[in-house]
Amino acid sequence: MIGTHGMTQPADLSDVRMTNLAVVLRYVRTHAPCSRADIAASTGLNKATVSSLVADLLERRLLRETGMAENRIGRPAAMLTLESRPYAAIGLEVATDHLAVVAVDLTGERLLTWRRAYPGLDGTPGRAEAAVAALAGRVVAKMAAQDRRVLGLTVGVPGQVGADGGVRFAPHLGRPDLELHAALERGLRRPDYEVVVDSAANLAALAEHRAGADADTPDLVTLVGDAGVSAGIITGGRLLRGGRGSAGQVGHLQVDCDGPLCRCGRTGCLEAVAGLPALVRRALPDTEDDGPVTDYAPELERIVALAKAGDTRVTEVLADTGRLLGRGVSTLAELLDPQVVVLGGTFATLAPWLLPAVEAEVKSRAAAPGDLGFRVTVSTLHPDAAAVGGAMLALDRLEAGRLPVPVE
Amino acid sequence: MIGTHGMTQPADLSDVRMTNLAVVLRYVRTHAPCSRADIAASTGLNKATVSSLVADLLERRLLRETGMAENRIGRPAAMLTLESRPYAAIGLEVATDHLAVVAVDLTGERLLTWRRAYPGLDGTPGRAEAAVAALAGRVVAKMAAQDRRVLGLTVGVPGQVGADGGVRFAPHLGRPDLELHAALERGLRRPDYEVVVDSAANLAALAEHRAGADADTPDLVTLVGDAGVSAGIITGGRLLRGGRGSAGQVGHLQVDCDGPLCRCGRTGCLEAVAGLPALVRRALPDTEDDGPVTDYAPELERIVALAKAGDTRVTEVLADTGRLLGRGVSTLAELLDPQVVVLGGTFATLAPWLLPAVEAEVKSRAAAPGDLGFRVTVSTLHPDAAAVGGAMLALDRLEAGRLPVPVE
Repeated sequence: MIGTHGMTQPADLSDVRMTNLAVVLRYVRTHAPCSRADIAASTGLNKATVSSLVADLLERRLLRETGMAENRIGRPAAMLTLESRPYAAIGLEVATDHLAVVAVDLTGERLLTWRRAYPGLDGTPGRAEAAVAALAGRVVAKMAAQDRRVLGLTVGVPGQVGADGGVRFAPHLGRPDLELHAALERGLRRPDYEVVVDSAANLAALAEHRAGADADTPDLVTLVGDAGVSAGIITGGRLLRGGRGSAGQVGHLQVDCDGPLCRCGRTGCLEAVAGLPALVRRALPDTEDDGPVTDYAPELERIVALAKAGDTRVTEVLADTGRLLGRGVSTLAELLDPQVVVLGGTFATLAPWLLPAVEAEVKSRAAAPGDLGFRVTVSTLHPDAAAVGGAMLALDRLEAGRLPVPVE
Repeated sequence: MIGTHGMTQPADLSDVRMTNLAVVLRYVRTHAPCSRADIAASTGLNKATVSSLVADLLERRLLRETGMAENRIGRPAAMLTLESRPYAAIGLEVATDHLAVVAVDLTGERLLTWRRAYPGLDGTPGRAEAAVAALAGRVVAKMAAQDRRVLGLTVGVPGQVGADGGVRFAPHLGRPDLELHAALERGLRRPDYEVVVDSAANLAALAEHRAGADADTPDLVTLVGDAGVSAGIITGGRLLRGGRGSAGQVGHLQVDCDGPLCRCGRTGCLEAVAGLPALVRRALPDTEDDGPVTDYAPELERIVALAKAGDTRVTEVLADTGRLLGRGVSTLAELLDPQVVVLGGTFATLAPWLLPAVEAEVKSRAAAPGDLGFRVTVSTLHPDAAAVGGAMLALDRLEAGRLPVPVE
């Protein structure tokens, strides 16, 4: 019952051709191997047009002929598929406790996965930018060594991303803005592919929707724990970005009337309860005796080790956090009516001790038994969800018509 | 940066033709008067196809030729426009305190607007169904008297609508389910147009997005006060329905830690503070001395009259309600990042006394001065917003390819 009001039509013939190239590419991606006749029948484009578009895509080395022919009456038809070898798309994530990078080929197959622990809140913003640019440069070089051309590079960061690519990185701890996009462009020596900075929760949602255990669920929310708490929202199969690209801010959802004071001045906000600094403060109360925490990776590992060992304080803190997180999950589910809510980031790391309490709280709030219209799951892509999403976003831009120019 | 993954392509040629008929209709709707050549150039369809599609639409009396020709080199081109006379689309709203119905022609022009006060929570569900069916029948008869064929009829109701058209009508007061869709089909004597039951907040959002003061805003939320509180969400120009069609439930957003007990068992829920029964209880505390309220229309009128007269209790209750409503508005805006939040239903009726407090609360929560990415406005379509949206939904189905068969 959703109208198509608001969809734009191509304005001129060159846009039409670009769009049609993308239409053919998208069809082959999902139906390969297929023939030119299959493409024409399915897309409604006439056969001469399809032949011309396919020739263009073959020249750009985005498609190749498989050499197989279908059994059919009349002339055998050459089958087409995506050309996986000459290209790569890259996604990176800068999280509070680690960096991750993923490279995929045109078909989405994984070429490379790197991760390293990283004190994301340590040191000056200049250091963070340099680390990301260095990591990006190393991956690009590796792809070049494989004779692969980079189609696009996307970096996911916590916090909100402005339209200019400026990042309020970990605003919850008062870090100044990162000029990440500019630093990347410099560090990558003015690349001939697109570099995009986006919110990690958005990219994680994209990845869960495309490649997670709940792939192709049209309505999905991922709730990502990091220094703060963010949500990535897929509705009707599309990412919900909002007017300024800053949708998904859930850190100040009120979940605990008796809760701790939040940096925003109110009490009981979700991030004041479930953000990583809050978890460390409650689970490891002696941590800050040595001074403020800047490297959260070892603290998170300590929490996991103690929880595995059955430490009472830690497991109780996690159960209580799960209960309050469940309130946030319920609120989001009531508002957005997803089929699934996926716990990601630190919530995925701590899922064994959080999830039972989350589920119990969610069930207690259902209007009637069996009335729950959604499931709570744990990300199967952690800790690479946002990096995978970033690589997919780069591939998407291809299908939106931003095709690489033919190789000379 | 949003990928097109998830969009379906037509599966066979008849679907392609139906889609193309809708494409042509949609183009003419937004560009009339226009020629066949204009349609071809803009949609990418070839001229022979466009001529065939236009002939089809002329025969179905969805288009007509205006008789005007553009000045151009060569043969004058006949101009096309929508045929407004043979059709009507109808939208109804069943609210807690009134019924409204709107009929429009194919171009969206208003043909009829009826409203009547109605005690929506009075009496048995059978009575409500009969009243709606009777009103619908009268409008349909009026359209028939104008030789207009009804394209579709949509009814907006408060509460949640299941996939089978069953309605949990005013669940907040424990009313049993309405079999509204079935009652309408019977009352309208098995109509040859589609009858749809939908949530009033969803339809209101559609109307605000198409015809309100903020029309064409791609990201818009309407917050509708009725017996409960519901939200209608437009994101990227599309209505957000959710997996089961029950998105927009905001009644249990926690807005007041010291607030009144809600029917759900918790305290401080948005509907326990700002739903119409809660407003009446707080502003007119002597009302229930005569027994439980079932007809809220006169109570709402009393509140308005007292507020206009400057009654201290009433204006303080409304200011306090506005403040708490503002918390709900902020939460929704942070999550969805709309350009505008539109107050509708009872919030529109009471806007003169609610809005200042809503805006003050919203501003106080902005991360930085001038950081507010959205505006709060008042519906200009009230009290017809959902009815207007219902009529538009019926027109949408036309553009989604559900065209009436040619007249014999």
